Amino acid sequence: MDGSEAPSSAPTRRVLAAAADLRAAPVGVFDSGIGGLTVLRELRAALASERFTYLGDTARLPYGTKSPATVARYAVQAADALVEYGVKCIVVACNTACALGLEAIRERVAPVPVIGVIEPGARAASGATRSGHIAVIATEGTVRGGAYQEAIHRLRPDARVTAVATQLFVALAEEGLSEGPVAESVIRHCLAPLYTAAPPAPDTLVLGCTHFPVLATPIRNVVGAQVRIVDSAATTAHVVRTELTAAGLVREEGAGGVRFLATDGAERFARVGSRFLGASIAPEEVELIDL
Amino acid sequence: MDGSEAPSSAPTRRVLAAAADLRAAPVGVFDSGIGGLTVLRELRAALASERFTYLGDTARLPYGTKSPATVARYAVQAADALVEYGVKCIVVACNTACALGLEAIRERVAPVPVIGVIEPGARAASGATRSGHIAVIATEGTVRGGAYQEAIHRLRPDARVTAVATQLFVALAEEGLSEGPVAESVIRHCLAPLYTAAPPAPDTLVLGCTHFPVLATPIRNVVGAQVRIVDSAATTAHVVRTELTAAGLVREEGAGGVRFLATDGAERFARVGSRFLGASIAPEEVELIDL
Repeated sequence: MDGSEAPSSAPTRRVLAAAADLRAAPVGVFDSGIGGLTVLRELRAALASERFTYLGDTARLPYGTKSPATVARYAVQAADALVEYGVKCIVVACNTACALGLEAIRERVAPVPVIGVIEPGARAASGATRSGHIAVIATEGTVRGGAYQEAIHRLRPDARVTAVATQLFVALAEEGLSEGPVAESVIRHCLAPLYTAAPPAPDTLVLGCTHFPVLATPIRNVVGAQVRIVDSAATTAHVVRTELTAAGLVREEGAGGVRFLATDGAERFARVGSRFLGASIAPEEVELIDL
Repeated sequence: MDGSEAPSSAPTRRVLAAAADLRAAPVGVFDSGIGGLTVLRELRAALASERFTYLGDTARLPYGTKSPATVARYAVQAADALVEYGVKCIVVACNTACALGLEAIRERVAPVPVIGVIEPGARAASGATRSGHIAVIATEGTVRGGAYQEAIHRLRPDARVTAVATQLFVALAEEGLSEGPVAESVIRHCLAPLYTAAPPAPDTLVLGCTHFPVLATPIRNVVGAQVRIVDSAATTAHVVRTELTAAGLVREEGAGGVRFLATDGAERFARVGSRFLGASIAPEEVELIDL
């Protein structure tokens, strides 16, 4: 993490030269919408005194079915906005944006550190599997981008990775159909390709979309107790804490807090987002911005 | 229909003064994405020699969960684009855009005639119900906008209207989960509010989203044979044919055709859209434009 280097090449307004100022600055979290609130939930649990600025690009969601060039362009615009808000690092809490835009974001906002959700998930999965067969479920864009497959193979070249696009899970999570027999029947249907492939069946399942932790219970019921489920929200929060600690940038004292920014629909952001964050958000807490 | 009036106040390039030129001009069809292709399918069946210009705003879908002001703004931009392409009338084949933007579109493109999907659906439902209890299923935006409820009450003030947001159906249709027991279990779950309300149960069900005709079979299996299902795609095509005929603007001869315009993702538009259109679309047929 290089956020404490001289920011001579950094954009205007980011003049956080002293480490103390940097420590006090918020952590930026960005997602295409509300899914990243599952990552924010874990970040708040891991870094209780930290302040967060969460940006959901709700006017342009979903990223999961958009073309790679468009996703990368949107992601860079969102990262730019967070830098303008003076964040000390950026967590890209959207798998699709990571899969298709992480390098472009890093290039754009350097030297601000950028942490994605894919690398931590890939690392956890590579460490967890015994059979060597890892399943990844994600949006269409993430699966097609191949970033999880590549990240896992960099860490464990002999691993077999089966990636399945489960776009319907996003709708299940957003519509609150996140438990019970109906949710399980959809999940069973969508996960069938994992079990019709040649054995052995995958022993590790990566939730490669930040919406999916909301469905952890029915997914567990479908895949059974023997499968290790890797939640990229939790693993990413762990990595952010480790990296901020190593750089001496953790805010140690004071009450934490969140500033919510969205590009459309404060009411829906608050209503649906509260389920993802696991804490109530009031519509008037959500500031609308343009990207 | 007033498309044959002198276009003195019309935008540049729309100089289709003579009726013959107007007859030869394409019919513009606009949707937030691919759902409107179910309307186009019915339009092609009803008007075989007509040429169509279909615009799907795929970069900014879904409209169904966006705020009213944003939807209206996007819808007007799309209508503007179709006028630039020289269409003789505009079919707003997106219930959400109709519910939230029809008046704004009409004002903007006058005197180009604009036909929405809500009025025809409301008319068909009002004529079909015997019990007076009509169910409308639609996106969140359409239900909240209340346009179906208002349109039905204008025609039949004594009608009881139960509107239910079934946002999940959009995902079912797009992901191709459009038949079988899993689709039916989701549909049964989402339609439960219709049957837990005070009796009598609705005897007429309006498919108030252009994605939903793709799910007609499992919806029929869930609601039973006694319920009249009103498909706004079919009813809208009928209205367009009637209005074009009355205005003497039907193209009577020659092979029909479709020009496909989209704002993102030609590959997905072609792949998923083919199911909605009921005919194959090649990715190279889809022209990408900016709005």
